[in-house]
Amino acid sequence: MTVLRYAYLGPAGTFTEEALRQVASPDEAVYLPQTDVGSAIAAVRSGAADRAVVAIESTAEGGVTATLDSLATGAPLVLLREVLVPVQFTLVAPAGVPLGGVRRIAAHPHAWVQCRRWLAAHLPAAVHVPATSNTAPAALLAEAAGDAAAVAALPFDAALVPPAAVGTYGLEPLAERVADNPSALTRFVVVGPPGPVPPPTGADKTTLVVHLPDNEAGALLAMLEQFAVRGVNLSRIESRPIGDALGRYSFSIDAEGHVTDERMGEVLMGLHRRCPYVRFLGSYPRADAVAPLVHLGTSDQDFVEARAWLARLRGGDPA
Amino acid sequence: MTVLRYAYLGPAGTFTEEALRQVASPDEAVYLPQTDVGSAIAAVRSGAADRAVVAIESTAEGGVTATLDSLATGAPLVLLREVLVPVQFTLVAPAGVPLGGVRRIAAHPHAWVQCRRWLAAHLPAAVHVPATSNTAPAALLAEAAGDAAAVAALPFDAALVPPAAVGTYGLEPLAERVADNPSALTRFVVVGPPGPVPPPTGADKTTLVVHLPDNEAGALLAMLEQFAVRGVNLSRIESRPIGDALGRYSFSIDAEGHVTDERMGEVLMGLHRRCPYVRFLGSYPRADAVAPLVHLGTSDQDFVEARAWLARLRGGDPA
Amino acid sequence: MTVLRYAYLGPAGTFTEEALRQVASPDEAVYLPQTDVGSAIAAVRSGAADRAVVAIESTAEGGVTATLDSLATGAPLVLLREVLVPVQFTLVAPAGVPLGGVRRIAAHPHAWVQCRRWLAAHLPAAVHVPATSNTAPAALLAEAAGDAAAVAALPFDAALVPPAAVGTYGLEPLAERVADNPSALTRFVVVGPPGPVPPPTGADKTTLVVHLPDNEAGALLAMLEQFAVRGVNLSRIESRPIGDALGRYSFSIDAEGHVTDERMGEVLMGLHRRCPYVRFLGSYPRADAVAPLVHLGTSDQDFVEARAWLARLRGGDPA
Amino acid sequence: MTVLRYAYLGPAGTFTEEALRQVASPDEAVYLPQTDVGSAIAAVRSGAADRAVVAIESTAEGGVTATLDSLATGAPLVLLREVLVPVQFTLVAPAGVPLGGVRRIAAHPHAWVQCRRWLAAHLPAAVHVPATSNTAPAALLAEAAGDAAAVAALPFDAALVPPAAVGTYGLEPLAERVADNPSALTRFVVVGPPGPVPPPTGADKTTLVVHLPDNEAGALLAMLEQFAVRGVNLSRIESRPIGDALGRYSFSIDAEGHVTDERMGEVLMGLHRRCPYVRFLGSYPRADAVAPLVHLGTSDQDFVEARAWLARLRGGDPA
Repeated sequence: MTVLRYAYLGPAGTFTEEALRQVASPDEAVYLPQTDVGSAIAAVRSGAADRAVVAIESTAEGGVTATLDSLATGAPLVLLREVLVPVQFTLVAPAGVPLGGVRRIAAHPHAWVQCRRWLAAHLPAAVHVPATSNTAPAALLAEAAGDAAAVAALPFDAALVPPAAVGTYGLEPLAERVADNPSALTRFVVVGPPGPVPPPTGADKTTLVVHLPDNEAGALLAMLEQFAVRGVNLSRIESRPIGDALGRYSFSIDAEGHVTDERMGEVLMGLHRRCPYVRFLGSYPRADAVAPLVHLGTSDQDFVEARAWLARLRGGDPA
Repeated sequence: MTVLRYAYLGPAGTFTEEALRQVASPDEAVYLPQTDVGSAIAAVRSGAADRAVVAIESTAEGGVTATLDSLATGAPLVLLREVLVPVQFTLVAPAGVPLGGVRRIAAHPHAWVQCRRWLAAHLPAAVHVPATSNTAPAALLAEAAGDAAAVAALPFDAALVPPAAVGTYGLEPLAERVADNPSALTRFVVVGPPGPVPPPTGADKTTLVVHLPDNEAGALLAMLEQFAVRGVNLSRIESRPIGDALGRYSFSIDAEGHVTDERMGEVLMGLHRRCPYVRFLGSYPRADAVAPLVHLGTSDQDFVEARAWLARLRGGDPA
Repeated sequence: MTVLRYAYLGPAGTFTEEALRQVASPDEAVYLPQTDVGSAIAAVRSGAADRAVVAIESTAEGGVTATLDSLATGAPLVLLREVLVPVQFTLVAPAGVPLGGVRRIAAHPHAWVQCRRWLAAHLPAAVHVPATSNTAPAALLAEAAGDAAAVAALPFDAALVPPAAVGTYGLEPLAERVADNPSALTRFVVVGPPGPVPPPTGADKTTLVVHLPDNEAGALLAMLEQFAVRGVNLSRIESRPIGDALGRYSFSIDAEGHVTDERMGEVLMGLHRRCPYVRFLGSYPRADAVAPLVHLGTSDQDFVEARAWLARLRGGDPA
Repeated sequence: MTVLRYAYLGPAGTFTEEALRQVASPDEAVYLPQTDVGSAIAAVRSGAADRAVVAIESTAEGGVTATLDSLATGAPLVLLREVLVPVQFTLVAPAGVPLGGVRRIAAHPHAWVQCRRWLAAHLPAAVHVPATSNTAPAALLAEAAGDAAAVAALPFDAALVPPAAVGTYGLEPLAERVADNPSALTRFVVVGPPGPVPPPTGADKTTLVVHLPDNEAGALLAMLEQFAVRGVNLSRIESRPIGDALGRYSFSIDAEGHVTDERMGEVLMGLHRRCPYVRFLGSYPRADAVAPLVHLGTSDQDFVEARAWLARLRGGDPA
């Protein structure tokens, strides 16, 4: 068995590591922590890693710009899988600190924002001690553990950390599932070099980057009609600037279905014909395993029959 | 050489015969005059004729219902060619009758309507003597010719007849190109049994009959989008009742292009997939030889390249 | 009470008279039979009649060309009401003729076509004696009634006549509800001079004539989008040639709803702005009393609220 | 004259200050520098400032998330004006440092990225010394100026700063208009509390936030058709997550035209009727003064005539 090397946003204990654990356990893969998303993706392009696991979208922030932009240009890469991770935090503290004794809480600013209502309800007097990452305060707590002077010297009493950091750093949970929006999620993708497309499962997604033929509202409408007329739904569409002038956009799109679906194939060919730039970023199973609604006349069978009928017409048999 | 047998709306001298003469001269074909359009088409279905020449559309009357309905159902037939004939009349009279002496004019009611303004300007005192066909008064004039008593017994002094009838019946033209609308045309088609499709000329038409999937306005819009999204223009669209209930329509459509065009093929497959009934009535050269405007990304080359690109994607090469 | 004068396609006993009886009984109105649809409509324009009752559409034949064309141009007229009449015939014969004794049947060619399967099943040996109208054989039967020599001299044994002709001419029914398609209908409309629009009933139709801005498929699609974007469905759309060149069409349209509906008003204004010619032919109650489906955001209330909101925005209050 | 207070991303010398100077000179306004975009916008909501000047879009980064999100929710604010500022840098150094002597360059990471090709061409050996803002190295240079020891102690030889910082801090330009993309721009907007809408100039923009009625591709298409059917073009459309679930988007839109335009009014009402949430963020003059293309039938005059025509129809006069 080949042991794959995974680049990801480290260090140990991050949400990305939690996503990576859903993909491959540390026993059967090499974990290569990176300092940022761009480095993780670059590691695949350079061959330093076989795969990257990177966040692509979150309920709170939307598309992850660094990921979208790194994938949209440069050497081709493809998405092989998606993984959903709930965005919930664990409040941790040195041994012996009761919840009622917490005054200063270390947290990355994003984490603080996503827990604000919980904190107002449970620890209204607590103040925010900004951290540079979700795992940095976990590391400080682990280092100080068991050394009363070191604990006393910490600039905070407690910290909001990813659940995965609790075990990694041997921390003491004071409160779990801390989050204002209990259904908050981050979507991660597994990125690899081009190669055989994962076979269709019946519940797949196809990710694309598309530039519009010109600078008009009508062009976006015409692009969406390429999908609509073949009955392919979109589950995500985001605009990113192309960067050469105001008002020029690149669209990042998730469409429901697989590149081997007849209807998806015709959509892709239509986009290729009409749009100046179309990049295929892969077809892969949906994390939620929801099969797409197949509209009237858009099943593979419908396409196959229509093609046979057209062949008969062209051969002179219009019956 | 096979001598083909053509069924058409006779007798000699009709506009239809004029159309037929553009297709095949009497020396090289057998002319089979019929009493109506339905009989001409039935003659091809029964094998009594090889081809039918029938009017399908005119500037004044629109679609010829009998032709459209005969082609839309029953054993499959295809259109092989179209012919345009100007709708102009010749005013004829017995030898020696001057234009100024004309008082009573025999004319089919349709002919009279289409010349009304000309008659008001040139023969304001003339009265209409209705004829049962365009050629009937021509035949009466020919029979009476040279027999003064017979001429005197005719219930009219002059007649409006198709130009083709002048030579056929040896008549005397008093005025030519009589018509209120000088660009009035009738479009005829040559109908034959299914067989090899005439090869594309670069300026072709494809004729279809399409039923909509349901009874909503949205269904017509969705059908038109099948054409629009592939850049295929329509030159004619007409609705005909399906006949089973009010509000259910069959659409008779002329689309610009040939069944072997990539874009037309994809339109046809799209219609086949979405509509409960699609009948292909042939691809054939346009009489006016006007090539279609090919929109961005819709040439055959664009389709071929897109298909090759999709094959590469499916094979795991997204470059 | 004003006694209205109704022009209609006569004579007594026609389907049109049956439609007229649904509108006004002979006791309370003046019936003015006409020889054709055009004359009935002209009688309203000239003031010779207050109303015309004319067929506009049938399941078997589709739009009635003469009616559509007469209404589409010329002095403005409006539709005030619609009436549906089943297309069924009664087989009548002189007293004493049994069904089994019928050999020759008088029938207008249209009637014969619509009863062909019934006749093949019940009177397979009967031959068709063409009549010039639906009521002509009824009149002949009535004249001959009681005079054995006259009856014997009739060129037929029985006739297919409209049900209304049975009572009018005092005829003897041999078979009733004769029709191959039991749901065949003809739709008639009551036409009058412009004036106050009949008030909305909640289940109304609006009839329009629309020319397209240019000669492209895209123009028809754009016209239909004027309806779709405001959620107005069409129940009928038919093309008629404008008459000046091949490929130029006038569309005759029935839309669901009333001119006083907010959504219909916005559609009409949109058509008026974009199309070179729009003729309003009236809003009137649907004969079937089916209320339209009102789509999300298209009720009158939705329009009123949106207008108030826009007024606030323009006044500087975007809350 | 009222002296307005402007909150903006400070300190002195930023690109935002350059934008603000185009709006109001320091002599006639109070400049209130803030540490971030959110604070600038909050200052208007709290009444601490009369206006905020904030970046909303750049060629390199696309929409400014913090600005878009702050405006999309919370107490209503409106955009009053837009200002374009070229994204070009000035390379500055202590007195006496020649271009050839530059080895270490202080620059904000974004600035470094946007000048990379220029630097590779002109100073291939230079290394990047990251700065925390565009103006921080300018302040350090200004403090050290004239003190040789302090200059020598600086961790860099030169810095990339906004052109506005040169005068503010009395710096020495080594190179001007440093930028890889000479047409790179940032678009700033002037934000204020709701109030009278700036009058139309004939070249205006309207900014909106729109949520879609449901989670389908078809909903985006339907939303775009609200604009297309009334002939209103979009100059910007960006998606932002609503934040409650993956796949739910809020669209930030710039449309060409003014809220008082008839066509824009109808678009806004259409959006209000169909979409669960529409926020009007103002109509204001376009910085580039380009008037929109007015499509057939979409001028104010066309709307006014259509409304008058509809009133006549409803009043019973269909002529």
